[in-house]
Amino acid sequence: MKIKIVLKVLGIVLFWEAALMVPSLLISIIDNSYEIKAFIIAISATALAGFLLSRFKFVKPEMRKREGYAAVALSWLVMSLFGALPFYLSGSIPSYIDALFETVSGFTTTGSSIVRNVEIMPRGLLFWRSFTHWIGGMGVLVFTMALVPSIGGHPVFLMRAESPGPSPGKLVPKIGESSKILYIIYTVMTAILVILLILAGMPVFNSFIYAFGTAGTGGFSMDNLSVGAYNNPWIEWIITIGMFLFGVNFALYYLLIRKEFKHIFKNEEFKLYCFYVVLGIALVVINVMPKFDYNFFEALRHSAFTVSTLVTTTGYSAVDFNLWPMFSKSVLLTLMIFGACAGSTGGGVKSVRILVLIKTLYYEINHTIHPKSVQRIKIDGKALDDDTLKSILIFFFAYIFIIILSVIIVSLDNFDFMTSFSAVIATVSNIGPGFEVVGPMGNYADFSYLSKLIFIADMILGRLEIMPVIALFSPVIWRRN
Amino acid sequence: MKIKIVLKVLGIVLFWEAALMVPSLLISIIDNSYEIKAFIIAISATALAGFLLSRFKFVKPEMRKREGYAAVALSWLVMSLFGALPFYLSGSIPSYIDALFETVSGFTTTGSSIVRNVEIMPRGLLFWRSFTHWIGGMGVLVFTMALVPSIGGHPVFLMRAESPGPSPGKLVPKIGESSKILYIIYTVMTAILVILLILAGMPVFNSFIYAFGTAGTGGFSMDNLSVGAYNNPWIEWIITIGMFLFGVNFALYYLLIRKEFKHIFKNEEFKLYCFYVVLGIALVVINVMPKFDYNFFEALRHSAFTVSTLVTTTGYSAVDFNLWPMFSKSVLLTLMIFGACAGSTGGGVKSVRILVLIKTLYYEINHTIHPKSVQRIKIDGKALDDDTLKSILIFFFAYIFIIILSVIIVSLDNFDFMTSFSAVIATVSNIGPGFEVVGPMGNYADFSYLSKLIFIADMILGRLEIMPVIALFSPVIWRRN
Repeated sequence: MKIKIVLKVLGIVLFWEAALMVPSLLISIIDNSYEIKAFIIAISATALAGFLLSRFKFVKPEMRKREGYAAVALSWLVMSLFGALPFYLSGSIPSYIDALFETVSGFTTTGSSIVRNVEIMPRGLLFWRSFTHWIGGMGVLVFTMALVPSIGGHPVFLMRAESPGPSPGKLVPKIGESSKILYIIYTVMTAILVILLILAGMPVFNSFIYAFGTAGTGGFSMDNLSVGAYNNPWIEWIITIGMFLFGVNFALYYLLIRKEFKHIFKNEEFKLYCFYVVLGIALVVINVMPKFDYNFFEALRHSAFTVSTLVTTTGYSAVDFNLWPMFSKSVLLTLMIFGACAGSTGGGVKSVRILVLIKTLYYEINHTIHPKSVQRIKIDGKALDDDTLKSILIFFFAYIFIIILSVIIVSLDNFDFMTSFSAVIATVSNIGPGFEVVGPMGNYADFSYLSKLIFIADMILGRLEIMPVIALFSPVIWRRN
Repeated sequence: MKIKIVLKVLGIVLFWEAALMVPSLLISIIDNSYEIKAFIIAISATALAGFLLSRFKFVKPEMRKREGYAAVALSWLVMSLFGALPFYLSGSIPSYIDALFETVSGFTTTGSSIVRNVEIMPRGLLFWRSFTHWIGGMGVLVFTMALVPSIGGHPVFLMRAESPGPSPGKLVPKIGESSKILYIIYTVMTAILVILLILAGMPVFNSFIYAFGTAGTGGFSMDNLSVGAYNNPWIEWIITIGMFLFGVNFALYYLLIRKEFKHIFKNEEFKLYCFYVVLGIALVVINVMPKFDYNFFEALRHSAFTVSTLVTTTGYSAVDFNLWPMFSKSVLLTLMIFGACAGSTGGGVKSVRILVLIKTLYYEINHTIHPKSVQRIKIDGKALDDDTLKSILIFFFAYIFIIILSVIIVSLDNFDFMTSFSAVIATVSNIGPGFEVVGPMGNYADFSYLSKLIFIADMILGRLEIMPVIALFSPVIWRRN
């Protein structure tokens, strides 16, 4: 591996991160709050590290797959290590591992928290905490690289490693252009969301916090009761629809701008996503009607919110679904595992993978009985090649393998099975809350440091979709050549 | 599909089943118990149906893959439908669905029970109940076909569909011979087990019951406390080692007889199986030592028994492991999912599939970083072809898909999640007991009929490893040609 190019990328990312901390610093200066010093030190340290690393020079810029993987995995790690500083240095989160957990949970848009009472956190830190969701949602590397074309090479390897989903498409031939278009759409949509929330009656600062959490499908809030604290149907509906839309592949919004409506409605992943969201809402509504005294609209609002928050793995709550019947909980759990579309900010397995798996299963049944048939699996009219299929199947296995290993280690803390199991699922799928101790009204504070380190690893593994992180541990990647 | 050949196979299998009910009838005659009439009617009905179906004639015997799949899936269904008659007709299990559940649980060597108090069941029925484990363990079709070579065709398709594991090897070129050798080994090993249990102090009848459950890795017992009722370390050790040995691929015993020791120790699946059994016992012993006042041998005996009963998916219990620390439970749950070797009587995913998945994952990591490398995945020195790999990965996905769908339907009964989830895992993996309501000291009696039908389907899907059963629902298989 050409280590210098990787270090240079790390430097640029850190520089960028230091800049992104500045708005939070400004808020704490306005509030004249105790975390000003922490932000100044954190920004200085991050910028200095970025400056030193970006001094690395290399003769021929060459970004291959292995450099792409290493750059992405290490960047996310280093970003989190520095991003945790404001929480730790201000004393707001006294343990560094806890601060790291919170930051990783932010960047990976998981939304799991170790903060017992978020309402006493100063606004500067709250802003930084939620802003990490927004930064992490779309991925930071590709954008950074797009701004710094001097690095050359093939940033497509960075995009592949950082974007959710098996094969992110380029919108336009130039990767830098694609990334800029995506970020413009992302920013405009977030701005619209902020405005709508303000119009619905939410305070301005709060609107930013909830818009970041919705756009990144993260789930950090600033109220212990999450969205439920506002008890406002308008706000709930805006966030419901917002979460759903941020769970759609952003490439479709580009098609929308270019008025290529035909392609949107032909997109099989989008259709499957809409299908299981609507089906999920319908099943849950029927099942929870008695809980809402057979008030259909009340049941619909709560069901739609809960389906939307879980399928996109955001993790906001407006109602305690732990009290719903088991059937609804099973449907919700399934949607959580399925997740949103590839190329969105959502987590989970991703709709397109589910689509491929269903098609493959159907194809294999026919093929087993009819060995001579030679039909091919197609997605959006394009034949699926064997390598993509294999990588999806292997992704599944690696995912299960990581879950098993994590549950075994985490269960050393001797919590009940449902807590350990759902905590692992919730972190590796970047969901946020699980059940029981880590349920919508609970948090991750009581786990041991060992478990928290496992969760940190799981969140990064889940966000980067396993391979880039595992690759770091392969001797092959570190070999000189 | 050539339906006549399938119907003829069903006829032969039913004829055979009627004969296998006779020993149970004899026991009830000796005891002069109330179920004599039920056995006589059941045997007559089964024999008559067998006679009628076996009258089908066909011109050119031809057993292709689709006929093999249909014959196996339908045989297991029909066998269970008739096998449930003694329980139902005698009134011992008043509901036919319950009786069917118990019979399917027997044949599939699951060992889940809806009987609340097994100690009041007459000996004739107890014998039949446990004998179904022994019959189902090794599979009944291949043996039947071996006895009736007149059917011609390629019984290899039957063997493939019925044997646990991805690719059962033929021991000798002739499939009939292979099946006879396997059954001789199976019978001799069971006989040795019976003798050892008698020598250890167990009554003769009980020794047969526990030997059937151990050999088939099923788990039905005749005591509410299972093996724990005897409180006899010798019996526990005999059954511990017995379960472990019946979880080994039977082809290895054939190699043992032929003194090909080299091949045994080179067998990678066997080595992996031994590795995780030993590792599992070690981890559990360390974890449960305090529970046994730091008495190492006491802890070892209970840990070895529990690991052995769960890894082979037998489901006997000698101690209530629900009370053990969470770490041990997670290790045990993992071993339950891994399961024993292919070509044994055990359930679960099977050691060889785990082996392939681990090797594939390792290979893919290297391949991702090093796209030019062309090394192949090898098992026991033989290169793994892409089709086998794909079918294993797809098996995994289908397995998860069935679990998700079943959990959603079963959760309509509104039991807690752990009960619903573990009940589905326990049936689809042919394990037997789950946790909570269906734990080692509980049973499946309180589920609705809908859930019981789902469990029945899951047990058969698990035992026949999904494909043959799903194939029945494909229109292709029913097409005339």
